[in-house]
Amino acid sequence: MDEYMQAALEEAKKGLACGGIPIGSVLVLDGKIVGRGHNQRVQKGSVVLHAEMDCLENAGRLKAVDYKRSVLYTTLSPCDMCSGAVLLYGIPKVVIGENATFKGPEEYLKSNGVELVVVDSRECKQLMEEFIKENQDLWNEDIGE
Amino acid sequence: MDEYMQAALEEAKKGLACGGIPIGSVLVLDGKIVGRGHNQRVQKGSVVLHAEMDCLENAGRLKAVDYKRSVLYTTLSPCDMCSGAVLLYGIPKVVIGENATFKGPEEYLKSNGVELVVVDSRECKQLMEEFIKENQDLWNEDIGE
Repeated sequence: MDEYMQAALEEAKKGLACGGIPIGSVLVLDGKIVGRGHNQRVQKGSVVLHAEMDCLENAGRLKAVDYKRSVLYTTLSPCDMCSGAVLLYGIPKVVIGENATFKGPEEYLKSNGVELVVVDSRECKQLMEEFIKENQDLWNEDIGE
Repeated sequence: MDEYMQAALEEAKKGLACGGIPIGSVLVLDGKIVGRGHNQRVQKGSVVLHAEMDCLENAGRLKAVDYKRSVLYTTLSPCDMCSGAVLLYGIPKVVIGENATFKGPEEYLKSNGVELVVVDSRECKQLMEEFIKENQDLWNEDIGE
């Protein structure tokens, strides 16, 4: 696991430590992390701040040309909303910790030219598996089920 | 224009009055408005709070069954991100003020079973046309261009 996915995983753990859903994300530009975030459903009562969205929000108002050469790291396969945000800003590459506990519209992203790398991290997967087992209702709420 | 699109338009105008991008949205459940919002790029420096997202955020944490029988009203055709949020929560119907100044992935929404109604409101269109003419850079930023 590279330093960026490690940073995303740290965000996920930070979220868990505050009673939140353990999904984390970082945005990388020219090898530098310019935004970090984690799921804020529990902490802020937010229905839009999934990890990727919180990360983008914390990165602030970037230039279009910057988004278009950035890489988004996320510990879990991005859902429809977060995938839509990737398309809106033209983020060309998404590195995904795992897509076993949840899989978003990856084919749709790929068909729109987004490069996806699935790391298949055991640590990311284990974090979600344990969380989902203990918090099925909260998890269902987060994915609209 | 029905009362719900009128309420969305009022949100758009509220945003404009605060120096923001004039796009508004309301979420309707059983004929009652349960959330209202407008684009918050300028006011909150937000890159995720498009009108529809701000509306969903203000509606709070609803039950999945409620989203699945709600209607989202928006003065402008929803972008990739907002369309993704519609899919995430399974909102079955979106009423769109206009899709002439900007058109999101409407075919993708339809192919995923979302009913779309385009009101083609002259007032919604005029609001955006005038705004875009005066604020081309800000508008481009909002749509990732």
